[in-house]
Amino acid sequence: MSEYTGYDGNSLEFLKKNQVVIGDSVKILADITYSGIIMPRYEHSDDKHIVLKLKSGYNIGLEITKIEKIEKNPTKEVIIEKDSKIEKNEKLPNILLLSTGGTIASKIDYRTGAVTPVLTAEELNSSVPELAKIANIEAKVLFSEYSENIVPEHWLKIAEEIKQYSKSDYSGIIIAHGTDTMHYTSSYLSFSLAGFPIPIALVGSQRSSDRASSDAALNLIGATKFLTECNTNGIYIVMHQDENDETIACHIGTRVRKNHTSKRGAFQTMGDDPAFLVVNNKIHNNMKTDYFSAQEFNPQIKINEKVALVKYHPGYEPSLLKNIIDSNYKAIIFEGTGLGHIGKNMYSIVKIAKEKGIFMGMTSQCIDGRVRMTVYESGRDLLNLGIIPLENMIPETALVKAMWVTGNTEKMDEIKEFMLDRIASEFSI
Amino acid sequence: MSEYTGYDGNSLEFLKKNQVVIGDSVKILADITYSGIIMPRYEHSDDKHIVLKLKSGYNIGLEITKIEKIEKNPTKEVIIEKDSKIEKNEKLPNILLLSTGGTIASKIDYRTGAVTPVLTAEELNSSVPELAKIANIEAKVLFSEYSENIVPEHWLKIAEEIKQYSKSDYSGIIIAHGTDTMHYTSSYLSFSLAGFPIPIALVGSQRSSDRASSDAALNLIGATKFLTECNTNGIYIVMHQDENDETIACHIGTRVRKNHTSKRGAFQTMGDDPAFLVVNNKIHNNMKTDYFSAQEFNPQIKINEKVALVKYHPGYEPSLLKNIIDSNYKAIIFEGTGLGHIGKNMYSIVKIAKEKGIFMGMTSQCIDGRVRMTVYESGRDLLNLGIIPLENMIPETALVKAMWVTGNTEKMDEIKEFMLDRIASEFSI
Repeated sequence: MSEYTGYDGNSLEFLKKNQVVIGDSVKILADITYSGIIMPRYEHSDDKHIVLKLKSGYNIGLEITKIEKIEKNPTKEVIIEKDSKIEKNEKLPNILLLSTGGTIASKIDYRTGAVTPVLTAEELNSSVPELAKIANIEAKVLFSEYSENIVPEHWLKIAEEIKQYSKSDYSGIIIAHGTDTMHYTSSYLSFSLAGFPIPIALVGSQRSSDRASSDAALNLIGATKFLTECNTNGIYIVMHQDENDETIACHIGTRVRKNHTSKRGAFQTMGDDPAFLVVNNKIHNNMKTDYFSAQEFNPQIKINEKVALVKYHPGYEPSLLKNIIDSNYKAIIFEGTGLGHIGKNMYSIVKIAKEKGIFMGMTSQCIDGRVRMTVYESGRDLLNLGIIPLENMIPETALVKAMWVTGNTEKMDEIKEFMLDRIASEFSI
Repeated sequence: MSEYTGYDGNSLEFLKKNQVVIGDSVKILADITYSGIIMPRYEHSDDKHIVLKLKSGYNIGLEITKIEKIEKNPTKEVIIEKDSKIEKNEKLPNILLLSTGGTIASKIDYRTGAVTPVLTAEELNSSVPELAKIANIEAKVLFSEYSENIVPEHWLKIAEEIKQYSKSDYSGIIIAHGTDTMHYTSSYLSFSLAGFPIPIALVGSQRSSDRASSDAALNLIGATKFLTECNTNGIYIVMHQDENDETIACHIGTRVRKNHTSKRGAFQTMGDDPAFLVVNNKIHNNMKTDYFSAQEFNPQIKINEKVALVKYHPGYEPSLLKNIIDSNYKAIIFEGTGLGHIGKNMYSIVKIAKEKGIFMGMTSQCIDGRVRMTVYESGRDLLNLGIIPLENMIPETALVKAMWVTGNTEKMDEIKEFMLDRIASEFSI
């Protein structure tokens, strides 16, 4: 991080002219007087604002043309010492934090104004001091990708890393991860690491830390609390329940979607309450069954990426499905309409897929609710064409599961069996 | 409808053996004694049950092996006279009902046990007698398709039909439609019939009428009430608000999705309350702006079907996008992740699409919330590659809009302009 990270054009000039840099404690006279720390910027939207972290912890953007005066405070606030070692507290549980990138991992800031490109345990503990009271956090950077750039190869890397810790002294593992594709990753880990003995929490943040009220710190605190006290295993996504800061929700990793582009409470368990809630530091357990059907940990870290997700809609051209078939896909997951339908204009191509031995599973673009293909003739036709109804599996989960299943076996009987075998709570019963 | 519609195998044999047919009023001794009317079946799940409509209006399925005795009641209940003419009440408003098929249109039954394959005004008024007290219903069968089989050609047919009634004496138009793709149809009508002077309600039912508690009648009553009293125009989807029967919700036709496979309250306005509610026969108005930006009705009933909806996910193979480009598509709507992202492995193919003059718009698979592509580098890269962020348009609405826009013009400047022109409340402001 440079002294001017994120600033350019007019705003950079403004900082230089006033001889202040990122991390400086300043007093600014504009419409009212503001005191705070100059923050780096990660939003590249304009060069007209500077970002100030107020004492309240909130960040605000101030338009430079409206600033009458800016002066450095004589006493500079303490910026965290990056190399300060945190003493391990033998009485506390140990948590492993694996960082994969995303907003949360690259820009943690909390109180101090410190921003680091990637997390180390020390930086994390310094920036979220509450964590050190709950657990000893050991951190490791796996890679650094925004989650829209995560590909199945990354899933394998995370799974291979975690596999090593099945007999460790960790109480749980946090994976810092971008939110965009977090529920795809949590699904893959759920299948490939089925039976993993300690709980795993994927944690992200919806607000980058140079915006007001980043949710990163509270999500991390909630996840740490959850992992050390939940007394179960499983792969969870741990994020704000809603827009207020009181409740952190722990969602079953195969039953959850990102259902809002920007809200802090963007993640929702489909068709049910979150498995656990952390409310005012208390854990509320709402789990109805064990997360994994298997008690024993027997990792199967394999994948076949030739699985297509086909969202059917009026006007969907059947030849697009034909292209997929001709591209040697091993499985197709349909996002059908309603109870699990696709138009009858698709039948002839579906028949070709069946003849080529491609697995076809049905989910619903309704996202919530169970597919049921025995109610209407359309559904029955599709059953006859060999399409397998996948209960109330979320389309994305079904896609990832099919990638995993077809990575483990090529036998159609086994594929069908595994797809409907409830391995990691991927459908409700 | 035959005397045994929907019955086969054991259940058919059972009816014949006991000399009873559909429409007979019977008393059945099983675990308890049931009185009711034998109903036709439209669920083809088994041959083990017969369906009985109880006096309460609810239907139950009775397992034939558990029936000890079945006897015809001496007085047969009155089955509606299909040819009885309803007198027009000059004091009441007139409503046009266009039937396109789906569960609602093919199997209306209510109180009487009458089931007809398609609706006529008389059958409708007889089967939902409350309607005649609210309005004079004139009905017309356009076609009869389950909505998974609706294709853009059907949209054109509906729009062309409705176009004729812009200067009629109807207070509103009901379109009976299957629920599966209802929100695609409502979107198309919203764009092609922008400014249409009277309100239009698409109405369906989630429960087929040979199942307990069909929602068809209440949805129709609610829609009729709404159309005659809302004092505005626009295209709405009118369905149960939730699982209870008290509230009927009227959703803006471009802001609504079917979000549950089977619940009666399956439809939801994304990111807002429904535009209107009908609660205990009272209309509650929650509209924030006019439905249409244009005041004048100037129908543009055109379409280009060569628009693809691409849902990006980890493992999405860029060559699938290349196939779409090579199939002469005119527009691509991305269902990106989060704020509107796709992986960087897609960039080179996106570039080809841009060079070929294909319109590319971005929506979010989060479904709720606005895309915002200036926050992260990924988004800015995609903007530079020519992808247009489509506000908080629902992916399906964006797809239909792009079909309509590219059906009306081939000029890229105009396509871009129209896609971001708020024509029918398709994004919120």
